[in-house]
Amino acid sequence: MNRVYNFAAGPSMLPEEALQRAASEMMSYGNSGMSVMEMSHRSKDYIEIYDHVVSLLRELMGISDDYEVLMLQGGATGQFAAIPMNLMKTKADYVDSGNFAHGALVEAQKYGEVNVVASSRDDNYTYIPVIKPENMSRDADYFYITTNNTIFGTRYTSIPDTGNVPLVADMSSNILSEPVDVNKFGVIFAGAQKNIGPAGVVVVIVRKDLIGQARKETPKIFDWKKQAEAGSMLNTPATYPIYMAGLCLEWLKKEGGVRVIYMRNQVKAKLLYDYLDESKLFKGTAAREHRSLMNVTFRTDSADLDAEFVKFATANGISNIKGHRLVGGMRASIYNAMPVAGVQKLIDVMKEFETEKVKL
Amino acid sequence: MNRVYNFAAGPSMLPEEALQRAASEMMSYGNSGMSVMEMSHRSKDYIEIYDHVVSLLRELMGISDDYEVLMLQGGATGQFAAIPMNLMKTKADYVDSGNFAHGALVEAQKYGEVNVVASSRDDNYTYIPVIKPENMSRDADYFYITTNNTIFGTRYTSIPDTGNVPLVADMSSNILSEPVDVNKFGVIFAGAQKNIGPAGVVVVIVRKDLIGQARKETPKIFDWKKQAEAGSMLNTPATYPIYMAGLCLEWLKKEGGVRVIYMRNQVKAKLLYDYLDESKLFKGTAAREHRSLMNVTFRTDSADLDAEFVKFATANGISNIKGHRLVGGMRASIYNAMPVAGVQKLIDVMKEFETEKVKL
Repeated sequence: MNRVYNFAAGPSMLPEEALQRAASEMMSYGNSGMSVMEMSHRSKDYIEIYDHVVSLLRELMGISDDYEVLMLQGGATGQFAAIPMNLMKTKADYVDSGNFAHGALVEAQKYGEVNVVASSRDDNYTYIPVIKPENMSRDADYFYITTNNTIFGTRYTSIPDTGNVPLVADMSSNILSEPVDVNKFGVIFAGAQKNIGPAGVVVVIVRKDLIGQARKETPKIFDWKKQAEAGSMLNTPATYPIYMAGLCLEWLKKEGGVRVIYMRNQVKAKLLYDYLDESKLFKGTAAREHRSLMNVTFRTDSADLDAEFVKFATANGISNIKGHRLVGGMRASIYNAMPVAGVQKLIDVMKEFETEKVKL
Repeated sequence: MNRVYNFAAGPSMLPEEALQRAASEMMSYGNSGMSVMEMSHRSKDYIEIYDHVVSLLRELMGISDDYEVLMLQGGATGQFAAIPMNLMKTKADYVDSGNFAHGALVEAQKYGEVNVVASSRDDNYTYIPVIKPENMSRDADYFYITTNNTIFGTRYTSIPDTGNVPLVADMSSNILSEPVDVNKFGVIFAGAQKNIGPAGVVVVIVRKDLIGQARKETPKIFDWKKQAEAGSMLNTPATYPIYMAGLCLEWLKKEGGVRVIYMRNQVKAKLLYDYLDESKLFKGTAAREHRSLMNVTFRTDSADLDAEFVKFATANGISNIKGHRLVGGMRASIYNAMPVAGVQKLIDVMKEFETEKVKL
């Protein structure tokens, strides 16, 4: 069957060999006589699968024993509430660098005072705003950033120093795409559906000393302490998506891990940005210094031409290249599972379209 | 490959043809060139899949347009909090008929006053307690029951009349197993991992007039109004488990729907209970008048013998027959996907074990 290059922002492309293995194990996992999705989450087979996923994540990201790794439900959006519910006593600092950052801070306002330290909202989030130390609250319960902004195609190129204030990061769209020093963070969380596996799981990596202060109105599935004590199985977890995440992480490990994939991600992004910078038809929409390695946003000068290109690309095996409505134009999400050949194919299709249009 | 009969309490056995179809569509769904788990939840293909699942549920359960059907994350345990968050103004009535009923009422106490109308907790939940009208609060915001108690193997045989007080039911372990008049309920919810599909989805069927009163501390993913307005896609849903639920519901429809499966479920339960009632070794643990059609709990007179039977059964292709630690003994969960042949096989194995033991 003809597989397309899928540039969706997430859920998105998964490694082909992970899918093939899932298909081959569908009717019976090993000698169990059942599919993973039929397994009790309390069974020996499933606990082994679960523990393996967590240990792969720990290994790939270099997560020390000072941190709990939770695999929960409700997505990153659920954690927008869970973070203040677990950490907020009075106030928190937020950087408003994109639509999800904004959603997170609006959600946090339900539980306490939110101090917006820096914002690029007025410029439609085309860049990462400068964080001025004098705007930071020394007594904040935590400091919140979004390391990669999926919709706008921007990313932090350095991690702010927040001193004793725990740094909380939504890494949904760039986790595992580049090396990260986990020890700089109090909490890292990420929806699985970009670089981890299919949708239905959110990974929460939380420093152990930050656990155990949940507000009394916290639903117990969002209480990190209760979930940590229960090995993320306070309630039945999304068993199959977690298993799939394991297959995807195994693929990543086999490819060489985060350092190797980071090199490949840089190559992919450079190919595309270099072409955008020399193109007469297409141009990138994010500030150069904050260009994301995962989500490349671009456009022509005309919305009609954008729409025409999206059609042309789709007809040529390039799926889901249309940009988010808040930005318009196009967006190529080139997560870990997108091969260099996919990016090259996209560039070829863009060039073909450009040649045709510039000729006219 | 040899598939076993899987009597797990959930996640549990799924229809073999649903798994086969999932395997065959893993690398490319239709002509899409991608797996369902790689699809954007906003894509045309995926929205069609989602809408089809909801319309199958509506058809199979006879759910009118007076109700919203939501497919959310966080499991039934998440709804233990979401229910009071969406419905509780001051107080609610709860029937304490099992471990999950109890968990639900403890969770609700975070948000208001809980009146325990009836309880069988002191008798280890071996029966459904009698609900005395004089114990019901006329001014309760809702009245809460658990129609089938997975751990203890009991079920309601009639639905209490709560007058104008909206009836909220956790149907996790018997939804779709027997006909239900949805119109008697304000809210029906169910974790998917028994009769709907794999784990990772909770179905919430809620009367539209009960939507829109969420408490201000409600995380937005738990706000039924916001989720209804967003078609359950306020955040990325568990796309693949929802697709799998569709394949399982298609199977159920093809089998003849809920009325036909109910007849089969009655046959399966009768076969097993009849044998238990005549056995000299095994006996049922739930009150006869409240015996569940889905979870059949039983034991011998000796914990050692129970353990020996569990081993013997496992060696004979009967998986996950061990009872929950709160009850001990054995539990056979015989959800919709368990064929009559599986129950017959279990009985044969029990008989063989009994013959051997009684001989000694």
